Amino acid sequence: MAAVESAVVCCAPLAAPLLDEQEAAATAELFKALADPARVRIVNILATSVEPVCVCELIEPLGLSQPTVSHHMKKLLDAGLIDREQRGKWAYLSLKRDAVEKLAAVADLKGVCC
Amino acid sequence: MAAVESAVVCCAPLAAPLLDEQEAAATAELFKALADPARVRIVNILATSVEPVCVCELIEPLGLSQPTVSHHMKKLLDAGLIDREQRGKWAYLSLKRDAVEKLAAVADLKGVCC
Repeated sequence: MAAVESAVVCCAPLAAPLLDEQEAAATAELFKALADPARVRIVNILATSVEPVCVCELIEPLGLSQPTVSHHMKKLLDAGLIDREQRGKWAYLSLKRDAVEKLAAVADLKGVCC
Repeated sequence: MAAVESAVVCCAPLAAPLLDEQEAAATAELFKALADPARVRIVNILATSVEPVCVCELIEPLGLSQPTVSHHMKKLLDAGLIDREQRGKWAYLSLKRDAVEKLAAVADLKGVCC
């Protein structure tokens, strides 16, 4: 989890002064977490929902099995892009807004925030 | 080249109303192009340069062989993130600002532009 969060903490805007290898690797990790259509769709669903979303509600719209959804959930958790809350049998997911804003800033050549 | 450009043209902001499979795939392609430390560093170098940058000037700072740099250049070209101009023996690279701004908008949950 430490390695995970460091991807969000250490990544740097693309237009920042020359990145060293470590910063470039952390930035690439963040992009990698979203380099998959299923994960883009999960983040999209979470981004358009006010409340945390049950994993059980992702299975049908994604057209994927529960283990596959869990696999993608794990990747997004590891990248520090989402939060996971256990409620009884099911996990409920929500976006970490600050992490996604960080992602937006990383991709923003104008280096607006951070 | 058509498939490439469509990644930039078709991708949709993460917070847009639910993405269909095609839009999610195009968005993931864009993230995938940057899911590599060397490509993050190339974009970083181009983003901090006013003039187009010779491929020959990327070899030393990246610590990679010329064929490897060319491989990464091809991936970024295919994603529509950079332009390539041949000047004699060498290719000169520059960022496609609109493509990178599109990327920023995709990652931006507030859906600022587009």
